Amino acid sequence: MLFGALEAGGTKMCCAIGDETGKILERMTIPTTTPAETMPPMIDFFKGKGIQALGIATFGPVDVVKGSPTYGRILNTPKIPWQFFDIVTPFEKALNVPVGLDTDVNGSCLGEVTYGTAKGLNCVLYLTIGTGIGAGVLANGRLLHGMLHPEAGHVKLKISPKDPAGSVCPFHDDCMEGLASGPSIEKRWGASAKELADRPEVWELESDYIAQALMNYIYTLSPQRIILGGGVMHQEQLFPMIREKVLAYNNGYYDTPQLKDIDHYIVPASLNDDQGLMGAIRLGELALTEVRPEIL
Amino acid sequence: MLFGALEAGGTKMCCAIGDETGKILERMTIPTTTPAETMPPMIDFFKGKGIQALGIATFGPVDVVKGSPTYGRILNTPKIPWQFFDIVTPFEKALNVPVGLDTDVNGSCLGEVTYGTAKGLNCVLYLTIGTGIGAGVLANGRLLHGMLHPEAGHVKLKISPKDPAGSVCPFHDDCMEGLASGPSIEKRWGASAKELADRPEVWELESDYIAQALMNYIYTLSPQRIILGGGVMHQEQLFPMIREKVLAYNNGYYDTPQLKDIDHYIVPASLNDDQGLMGAIRLGELALTEVRPEIL
Repeated sequence: MLFGALEAGGTKMCCAIGDETGKILERMTIPTTTPAETMPPMIDFFKGKGIQALGIATFGPVDVVKGSPTYGRILNTPKIPWQFFDIVTPFEKALNVPVGLDTDVNGSCLGEVTYGTAKGLNCVLYLTIGTGIGAGVLANGRLLHGMLHPEAGHVKLKISPKDPAGSVCPFHDDCMEGLASGPSIEKRWGASAKELADRPEVWELESDYIAQALMNYIYTLSPQRIILGGGVMHQEQLFPMIREKVLAYNNGYYDTPQLKDIDHYIVPASLNDDQGLMGAIRLGELALTEVRPEIL
Repeated sequence: MLFGALEAGGTKMCCAIGDETGKILERMTIPTTTPAETMPPMIDFFKGKGIQALGIATFGPVDVVKGSPTYGRILNTPKIPWQFFDIVTPFEKALNVPVGLDTDVNGSCLGEVTYGTAKGLNCVLYLTIGTGIGAGVLANGRLLHGMLHPEAGHVKLKISPKDPAGSVCPFHDDCMEGLASGPSIEKRWGASAKELADRPEVWELESDYIAQALMNYIYTLSPQRIILGGGVMHQEQLFPMIREKVLAYNNGYYDTPQLKDIDHYIVPASLNDDQGLMGAIRLGELALTEVRPEIL
């Protein structure tokens, strides 16, 4: 069975055709400019390919709560042409198939749960650390929305006294995205994460900020596994540093088999940066079959 | 239909007989001493009352993950006689009815969701602020366990420069329970919360610590409502202060109808401190009927 998949980003749109095993058979990437320019070639790509449904994993904030009057709309994004754009209806109308929708990070989480390192688990946190920081959450076997969707990249952290640079987030002076995203690394050290790979002080500070946030996610969500993806996490030296600091912050309090085996608890994304697109395939498949009760 | 309900606390055990509307028909409270002393009178209380099932909402940490080899056991508690005590099996054997189990705070959350202020919602945070601080979480219509259960009272906070007292938590020098629980208030100000009711500086600091934690829960869980219970929250002057500080910390970032109507978003517990016991009634009812898939 074939599904269309769209990973909609603020910079580029990745479209794919895939099957129910998550295999990607064909793909196309185009820049994200305006809906008027960007939507038609995507619709053309999906047309006539025999897809049974389409899954969209999109940048946000986006209204993913079914039944809401603004369901399907990108909300208050700094990408002005996309503000309040309904990204679902044009595809439904043009392709005449069910369309599943979630956030990009919930999509990545679903990709890892369906095809990757979190297979078989029912409570999982996927965190991307790149241009922005965002979290996808699987809770009790379903992607978490709640009143909108998690925005866990904006949790408050304790700023290190060794960090004079301050936050790059326009809303918060001490949030994780403001202190630990790719742009905040660039602002602080004057170079990109990649160029700073051999500067231990960069990763000492970065791993501390990430560990602070993970500690809070662990106590709040109690996930069975934490997956870290995104450009900054390509710096693999971060993993052992983050694990060590999480255990130090926990200080023996939360006593679980998973934390005792932390190398398999805090892990890298496993699908070669296709986790979002593969999650979108699965969102399509779920749109075909799932009744998603938003109310108990 | 009649159900037994047990709200098991470190200080006292509250037992009740209730019906499926949450009505409590009979109750008994005894001190929590040792299992050998405390269990037999509770079993006697429930015997011969025609209950169809028993629900237990207990202090923790406790293994509530069905299928785990230590399911039903209180884990590493400072109440030494109860360490690793299996609180489920003795009731199952003596009463010969299904037994439902969850944490005390998940029980309270379930009480509010079934009979109280969170009726009809599917993502809810219940926070108790008293001798300890703990959170119950309903996510996607089910109580959240994950790898164990949330321990959200231990999230890291930024210590106010006006707060020299330090943390009362033996594990963490900057966690919420260490800084904002009843005992931490007593340590800092030399009197109990009740005696400090007319000291605005006490509640200024307390509401800041609570707001910091709520901000992080909101970004991480995206709950549709937050319910604050427990002894400290009987200081009702805290509510407007907490709401104001949450909005200030959010700084317009998370833009939802719920936050615009924050008086109905961050609310007091609504069941006269019976939320835990009423939740336990419902845990009993669910034990009769529910298949609870711990794995997707």
